[in-house]
Amino acid sequence: MGSSRVAYLESNQPRFLEELCEFVSIPSVSALPEHAGDVETAADWLAARVEGAGFENVAQLPTGGTPVVYGDWLHAPGRPTVLLYGHYDVQPADPVEAWDSPPFAPEVRDGRLYGRGASDNKGNLLAALIGLEAVLQTDGSLPVNVRLFLEGEEEIGSPFSLSLLATEKERLAADICVNADGIQYGVGKPTILGSFRGMAGIEITVRGPSSDVHSGIFGGTIHNPLHAMARLVASFHDADGRIAVEGFYDDVVPVGDEDRERLGRAPFDEQEYIAGLDVDAIFGEAGYTTNERAWRRPTLELNGLWGGFQGEGSKTIVPSEAHAKVSCRLVANQDPGRIQELLEAHVRRHAPPGVRVSVTRKRGLANPYLLPLDHPGVEAMADSYREIYGREPFYIGSGGTIPVTAAMLEELGIYSLVFGFCTRDEQIHAPNEFFRLSSFATAQKAFGTLLDKLAGIKAF
Amino acid sequence: MGSSRVAYLESNQPRFLEELCEFVSIPSVSALPEHAGDVETAADWLAARVEGAGFENVAQLPTGGTPVVYGDWLHAPGRPTVLLYGHYDVQPADPVEAWDSPPFAPEVRDGRLYGRGASDNKGNLLAALIGLEAVLQTDGSLPVNVRLFLEGEEEIGSPFSLSLLATEKERLAADICVNADGIQYGVGKPTILGSFRGMAGIEITVRGPSSDVHSGIFGGTIHNPLHAMARLVASFHDADGRIAVEGFYDDVVPVGDEDRERLGRAPFDEQEYIAGLDVDAIFGEAGYTTNERAWRRPTLELNGLWGGFQGEGSKTIVPSEAHAKVSCRLVANQDPGRIQELLEAHVRRHAPPGVRVSVTRKRGLANPYLLPLDHPGVEAMADSYREIYGREPFYIGSGGTIPVTAAMLEELGIYSLVFGFCTRDEQIHAPNEFFRLSSFATAQKAFGTLLDKLAGIKAF
Repeated sequence: MGSSRVAYLESNQPRFLEELCEFVSIPSVSALPEHAGDVETAADWLAARVEGAGFENVAQLPTGGTPVVYGDWLHAPGRPTVLLYGHYDVQPADPVEAWDSPPFAPEVRDGRLYGRGASDNKGNLLAALIGLEAVLQTDGSLPVNVRLFLEGEEEIGSPFSLSLLATEKERLAADICVNADGIQYGVGKPTILGSFRGMAGIEITVRGPSSDVHSGIFGGTIHNPLHAMARLVASFHDADGRIAVEGFYDDVVPVGDEDRERLGRAPFDEQEYIAGLDVDAIFGEAGYTTNERAWRRPTLELNGLWGGFQGEGSKTIVPSEAHAKVSCRLVANQDPGRIQELLEAHVRRHAPPGVRVSVTRKRGLANPYLLPLDHPGVEAMADSYREIYGREPFYIGSGGTIPVTAAMLEELGIYSLVFGFCTRDEQIHAPNEFFRLSSFATAQKAFGTLLDKLAGIKAF
Repeated sequence: MGSSRVAYLESNQPRFLEELCEFVSIPSVSALPEHAGDVETAADWLAARVEGAGFENVAQLPTGGTPVVYGDWLHAPGRPTVLLYGHYDVQPADPVEAWDSPPFAPEVRDGRLYGRGASDNKGNLLAALIGLEAVLQTDGSLPVNVRLFLEGEEEIGSPFSLSLLATEKERLAADICVNADGIQYGVGKPTILGSFRGMAGIEITVRGPSSDVHSGIFGGTIHNPLHAMARLVASFHDADGRIAVEGFYDDVVPVGDEDRERLGRAPFDEQEYIAGLDVDAIFGEAGYTTNERAWRRPTLELNGLWGGFQGEGSKTIVPSEAHAKVSCRLVANQDPGRIQELLEAHVRRHAPPGVRVSVTRKRGLANPYLLPLDHPGVEAMADSYREIYGREPFYIGSGGTIPVTAAMLEELGIYSLVFGFCTRDEQIHAPNEFFRLSSFATAQKAFGTLLDKLAGIKAF
């Protein structure tokens, strides 16, 4: 990185901190209707800041919900185009009384800025914009073309904004996405997050007699829906925890040796993990580590199971109905719709006699996401981290489901490099959220560094 | 039966009906504290009626709850002693608005007396007393010695009154019990009820992480308590519905060929049974008919099963806990305490890994009851029915649990002859309960007939 960029960043740091305080002080809580005006204010503030950074064609793209702030800088012909992703909405601050300083009156203590959104995602997003501004201001140009996609409803699952990926394909066309909503293991422990799991769910109902009946009179003569349900849902796994639904694993991308070796280097303390959950032991599919099970293997979980009498004491009935809520976390290349079909077929095939079994497919399907290890962006990220920290990054995955990465791959055909300088300890989604000012400064430099690395890639 | 008995009964029928109306008009609802005074009034009324019938040593034996009305007539030396059982309490009348005439203002319509308790058990009990009065008044003596045990808390499960069977063994000593709380298949379809099932229950808790956890972050790495519970409770039965708990059937008295042949003659319409429950098919242990399954084979039923999210929509968690309520209906000679031990051992043996499983033994154990087919009382009942109806009785069992028969066997060493003239259609425990006046009159004759038959038995 050029010394002039560093000088620019260092000399403007007080202004940048002031800007971050301004941004954090806007209570842009997307989940709460009473903050709708604040979310708009944050969009306006961000659009102005984007323009101030030197981006062109700045616009607030309307969605069914809050606008997506767009901007671009497209003066690097022959160079890749990067789509920078971030979000300007935040989680609710409840319980407010648990905060040591008001969530929307940001305060610096011990080199940290406290406030809702300081870490997730306003700090990291602003750092990215600042980093690009520094390059533009000192070099007069960016090493790549850049487009911005900054949404305002990430914290509520992006119900509307992601539809722009389908309707604005031309405006959003790019070679790679840099997702500025990332997180690291700890300060100076950079991570490359290579996967998210997808989601597909069903609900099962087992019906027996038309009402609960007396277990003395009828017990033993008809199939108890709870017995039928227990047998049915027990058939979803074998005794070792492997999913026994026919075809379930067919499309799963195996964890390769190199991948396994890289993932295995991520810090993991089994005793700490067990103690944190207060369980006696870990449990999962044979042949995989805990991190591999969480990041790279699919699940089939009962989220709820119920029927019959749940009160104190006894009620000697054969209940009328039993219910189960089932959801699967999926990995590449499982298709959520296909998985629902397989689940339904399994239920039909294992439907016990004497009861009526029905299946409802749940909404909220999400595709899994996997960034191939040999994608050139992975090496660009790793190189950036080496330059910044002088060390190798950890390679990890996420067991959770974040629709945006899969949606960008599906609609725009581009992978995402999740690049962030927040850390796990920053009370994200909790009281006393904070962002380290040192991380804020590091991030500003890092986004420029990453663009430099990406500039040299010929094919994505 | 002597013609003088018949004449006595016929000439006094208006008085007997008046008495039944008086008895039914007392709202002796044992379940409702506001009727405690009415239950006492009914006990007083009954004690006076017992005295009027010619019984001696009439007393209201105190219990922790309502009194047991006692009386005896012990002037038949060398003859058997019969303990006559009945109850003077009734079910609540709710919903009162569903009655065509007030539940405690008995009314005769179309040859039926309508009112709460008219059938269960005031009508049948009064008929028994009247029958014995007729014998005493016309013969000057009874053919057997008789003691009375008329309780006031049958409808709430006899929490106190049955303890007298242990503490008043001498006063209640008898060779056989005639239980006047019986019921028949229909008018003129007499039945001999030979068994009740017992009861034993446990509650199972499966604990995983100390709170519900995110199924994305943790799913696949720890044992989901709902999976563990489903697998555990599914292990209670094999796929054909037979109970798979080791030792569960060890003490079960097999259904013998003669017994099976007799039980098989009881009316049963499978299509009607299925339609009444609104199920597609019957289901149960292979090798047994529906009636055998309900009356003479034990069950293990899940009465409740629950854990995790039960609301609308989705909540993608691995829940912290799963719960199951289990109760078994037992048959002779299963011991409820032993069954609890076997269930607990089964749960321990099948406890899945990675979760903590605990078992609570439920209160409310009840012994099963089986009247041997070759018991001389069976033939005495059958003979009485032949004389009254000119036809063979049906032999049936009950899948339900009525503690009094097992308790009399256990404490007093005597079997019970369940002898009653109520029928299944009489809206027992429901609005518009009624008793046919023709059944009332038949019952009065029948109890005398039964005593005549029992008088000739040398050994029980």
